[in-house]
Amino acid sequence: MKPFLLALALAAAPALALADPLPSWNDTNAKARIISFVETVTNPDSPDYVTPAERVATFDNDGTLWAEQPVYFQLIFAVDQVAKLGAADPSILTTDALRAAAARDYKALLATGKDGLIEVLRASHADMPLDRFRADVAAWLNEARHPTTGMRYDEMVYQPMLELLRYLRDEGFATYIVSGGGVQFIRVFAQEVYGIPPEQVIGSSTTSRYEVVDGVPTIVKGGALFFVDDKEGKPVGIMQNIGRRPILAAGNSDGDFQMLEFTTAGTGARLGLLVHHTDAEREFAYDREGHIGVLNRGQDEAGARGWLLVDMAADWFRVFPGAPQ
Amino acid sequence: MKPFLLALALAAAPALALADPLPSWNDTNAKARIISFVETVTNPDSPDYVTPAERVATFDNDGTLWAEQPVYFQLIFAVDQVAKLGAADPSILTTDALRAAAARDYKALLATGKDGLIEVLRASHADMPLDRFRADVAAWLNEARHPTTGMRYDEMVYQPMLELLRYLRDEGFATYIVSGGGVQFIRVFAQEVYGIPPEQVIGSSTTSRYEVVDGVPTIVKGGALFFVDDKEGKPVGIMQNIGRRPILAAGNSDGDFQMLEFTTAGTGARLGLLVHHTDAEREFAYDREGHIGVLNRGQDEAGARGWLLVDMAADWFRVFPGAPQ
Repeated sequence: MKPFLLALALAAAPALALADPLPSWNDTNAKARIISFVETVTNPDSPDYVTPAERVATFDNDGTLWAEQPVYFQLIFAVDQVAKLGAADPSILTTDALRAAAARDYKALLATGKDGLIEVLRASHADMPLDRFRADVAAWLNEARHPTTGMRYDEMVYQPMLELLRYLRDEGFATYIVSGGGVQFIRVFAQEVYGIPPEQVIGSSTTSRYEVVDGVPTIVKGGALFFVDDKEGKPVGIMQNIGRRPILAAGNSDGDFQMLEFTTAGTGARLGLLVHHTDAEREFAYDREGHIGVLNRGQDEAGARGWLLVDMAADWFRVFPGAPQ
Repeated sequence: MKPFLLALALAAAPALALADPLPSWNDTNAKARIISFVETVTNPDSPDYVTPAERVATFDNDGTLWAEQPVYFQLIFAVDQVAKLGAADPSILTTDALRAAAARDYKALLATGKDGLIEVLRASHADMPLDRFRADVAAWLNEARHPTTGMRYDEMVYQPMLELLRYLRDEGFATYIVSGGGVQFIRVFAQEVYGIPPEQVIGSSTTSRYEVVDGVPTIVKGGALFFVDDKEGKPVGIMQNIGRRPILAAGNSDGDFQMLEFTTAGTGARLGLLVHHTDAEREFAYDREGHIGVLNRGQDEAGARGWLLVDMAADWFRVFPGAPQ
């Protein structure tokens, strides 16, 4: 290296070392706790040092990495898909639930109950080659826009959490999604949006089967439920797929309680983090009531369990990428 | 770098570049095809170049990475475990199958049929905390010795395949196990023996559940079958867990047929590899007949499908680590 380049590099080094890994987080206790945790587990001189192989961090998706209001985006995909299929061939709209979905009448759809929802999910998710399902999701992400923000759904991701994912990976962590949503649905956008490759996405799933169709080996998504990756299912899914206990887990609802409980019960430094939706202006404010993202037990016990409750309104400088603060 | 160090480094470079990545493979066509495949997919100027993220290689375990005669080693673990539990408390030996296992009478055990085998597997694998199961397997690996070779079971691994795994990882591949054996069983030794971390082991499994036992969050292995990762189940397990089609798949029996079929049906360069057990002297010779590792369709169709049939006797210079050639 030429001397003047060396001098430049040395001059830049302190600035680089001090670069803020979490610029969209305000300088509150939440940010300080995250950085302190990461510095502790990556410091070889710390008694709580963790080898890179064991630096596993798991993240819920809906309400933790991207928004989930007014309903889970995957349900909106299902409804849009039934509407699309029904427009092409109205004869497939054989039930009240399918007709309600085709009319995008969520109230009427929810009135058909769990069985109605399953009909709509099956019509959009099941009995088709996995490749076709993936293409359907990709096409939908390109076309669909959120009803109140007008944004693409995959733009309604939380910039502070994208920074946290990247910071953790830069510090040698493997970052996983552990979602109640569908594993094959999330994989369509996880790499591009979150930098998380398909093999690090764990989620709920239907059974699937292997068939040679006209000489072409094909994975076909079936209609039966295979695994529900929610509540008690989250630690089960983690040990089934990863086989190691995470040292950091992040969620936003009581569906994430057991994942945080399991994670923080391990020895050494651990971080449990709950995103608390407190920001009606920049996002949505909700917690103890409603049909999505209910956070009761997590709020009640976070203090005693030492979990970090992230206050979106106070702790986040910015919510969505590129949005004003 | 000081000039003489630079000179040394330059002098050493050609030797390093030519170092043999597969020293336990003879210089036959098999070795040449493997190296040619790896060089093709890692050469950025090749039309068949594959980005590192897509360099997924999947390996069967029993008969492909370690031996499987006279019966699957996991069954020997189950029998040894029942014998151990039965010696401590004979009252648990309530059935013919359990009594046969406790007496290590494999003939009598096999005569009890599938239900008898399931009883023995349940007694050794189910209704216990995952941590205890792992400790049981680790203790068994330390104590148990193979009936004819007297070796530790985790020493009966194929040195040429260890070299292949390492060569692939050095060339940017992710190496996965995709086994009909139990995922939690294999994870106990996969990192140390194969350099494969738990999250890259896919296998068959029982259901498991999450329980807080005396305040301690615990994963408990249950007794119901959750997933059978064999035959058609192998490509299903791959797309469930990895979400990408491999570019290389290695097996040894017709239980691996669909994994190789699915892998080699992808576009671009692909390698399907079958280990053919032809070496009665250094290992075991078997293929079309018997209850373990039957290879009929794979042998019949390997040529037409372009799969590499590895002849252990001819293609391997050495079988087990440290063994004479």
